[in-house]
Amino acid sequence: MADLATLLADCAATVDKTMDLLLPQPDDAEARLFEAMRYSCQAGGKRLRPFLVMQCAALFRVDKRCAARVAAAVEFMHTYSLIHDDLPAMDNSDTRRGRPSCHKQFDEATAILAGDALQALAFEILSAPETHADPNVRIELVKELSQAAGGHGMCGGQMIDLLAEQQEAEMNIGAITRLQRLKTGEMFAFSSVAGAVLGKGSYRSYMALHNFAQEFGLAFQISDDLLDAEGDPEKTGKPVGQDAAAGKATFVSILGAERARAQAHLLIEQAVHALDVFDEAADPLREAARFVVDRTN
Amino acid sequence: MADLATLLADCAATVDKTMDLLLPQPDDAEARLFEAMRYSCQAGGKRLRPFLVMQCAALFRVDKRCAARVAAAVEFMHTYSLIHDDLPAMDNSDTRRGRPSCHKQFDEATAILAGDALQALAFEILSAPETHADPNVRIELVKELSQAAGGHGMCGGQMIDLLAEQQEAEMNIGAITRLQRLKTGEMFAFSSVAGAVLGKGSYRSYMALHNFAQEFGLAFQISDDLLDAEGDPEKTGKPVGQDAAAGKATFVSILGAERARAQAHLLIEQAVHALDVFDEAADPLREAARFVVDRTN
Repeated sequence: MADLATLLADCAATVDKTMDLLLPQPDDAEARLFEAMRYSCQAGGKRLRPFLVMQCAALFRVDKRCAARVAAAVEFMHTYSLIHDDLPAMDNSDTRRGRPSCHKQFDEATAILAGDALQALAFEILSAPETHADPNVRIELVKELSQAAGGHGMCGGQMIDLLAEQQEAEMNIGAITRLQRLKTGEMFAFSSVAGAVLGKGSYRSYMALHNFAQEFGLAFQISDDLLDAEGDPEKTGKPVGQDAAAGKATFVSILGAERARAQAHLLIEQAVHALDVFDEAADPLREAARFVVDRTN
Repeated sequence: MADLATLLADCAATVDKTMDLLLPQPDDAEARLFEAMRYSCQAGGKRLRPFLVMQCAALFRVDKRCAARVAAAVEFMHTYSLIHDDLPAMDNSDTRRGRPSCHKQFDEATAILAGDALQALAFEILSAPETHADPNVRIELVKELSQAAGGHGMCGGQMIDLLAEQQEAEMNIGAITRLQRLKTGEMFAFSSVAGAVLGKGSYRSYMALHNFAQEFGLAFQISDDLLDAEGDPEKTGKPVGQDAAAGKATFVSILGAERARAQAHLLIEQAVHALDVFDEAADPLREAARFVVDRTN
């Protein structure tokens, strides 16, 4: 197997190319909207959700071009959520991955519309026959993505997060686990099970990927909290201790760094265990899971 | 045939009930999000898009419960666009149909999320088997709604509208027609053709409804501009001359009231003509078209 860094880079290149083909060209009166959509999609990042889509789809020998379309749809959805989360009324972030955030580069109205249009684009891509010949598969993808993104998924999680910051919601370990499951876990879960949906995998393999993604997503979030609390600013590109300074409840603030780290490792063991139904084809997923808790950025 | 006011009221009651059943209950930590979604959906309005869905579906004897779900999805999409359009960064409207707009009643962050979640909910509803037993029909609805709502539809139209207000786009009759076709026309078109999709109508009937909706939508917009320019504030509930005061390019500012009115009537004649392939079952649509240019609010 190629090493994980190579796999991640290959996946990012494939999905970046697919996203570029799928994004509208800025050649009309509404060009500014398409420029903003492209700007935010080209901000880079690990493309971790696309990586899950591509790797899980590979377990079922899904055509790579089909998987790349679903990966692009997931990343469009994720990008829309980042654009809206960065808005002044939400997290008020002026920068995103070292560049001005969308509303700083353009303006707030354009950023809101770019996010809205990216959400619609994600569903448009899933609905096209190029994504899968079987309409049952395409509609199942639409159903699962809409649920992962909506009020009982990503949007609901972001709402709880905002209320928690305003101290209007009591945060304990149960509450924060639920918040993260909605805010990021459901999209990780979609990214993983999409492979089984595309490949018409068994219920057993679908559930294996679902369970993998749940544990993986939580471990990812805990490691994010750990990097914020004690990471190397030169590697993370962010000042240390932002969450604590903001009085934000995190896994680290509730459990302490040591127990949080132990919990992340336990979750990753469970995630890897969930993959036992797959042979060595799932090794990149196993390695990605271990990478997530050992990463330094 | 029952009179149009009764049909409109019946349709609104059916769709309001369906929307109520489909909206999540505010019973969890993220309750505020669901309250905001419900608040904006319960603001009333003519439910004109749902009316088009229900009436066009009736032409093909589609089960009313299926049509009502699609009508609810369209109205959720329309409501999300109103919530986002009212935001301070967009049209900055403090009121909507005589009540505080969503971001005034709640806050900006909640309003952004409520809009986002309503868009996801619209696609979730279309993807469910209760909307139609045939996955080909459901995925076609998803494809058409995502296109009508996205960068080449509603979002693109709103972008052009914002640029026009900042005088960054030159507005002539061609430009304003394109703006309105994108901003409102595509969603009217979806609302109309959805009936043919649900009922597996012929290509000829699909195109008839598509053409009907295009003319209907433009006529609706011109009559909106006329009401703004010379309507009775007691009936419209809005002060007269807001567009002119804001220096906004409208059909009335470009054509003058008299030519704009003549154009609206011509468009409605064309819209009614497009319905010639249908028998008297389409009479409510014909009457709605005539009502749209003669209305006083």
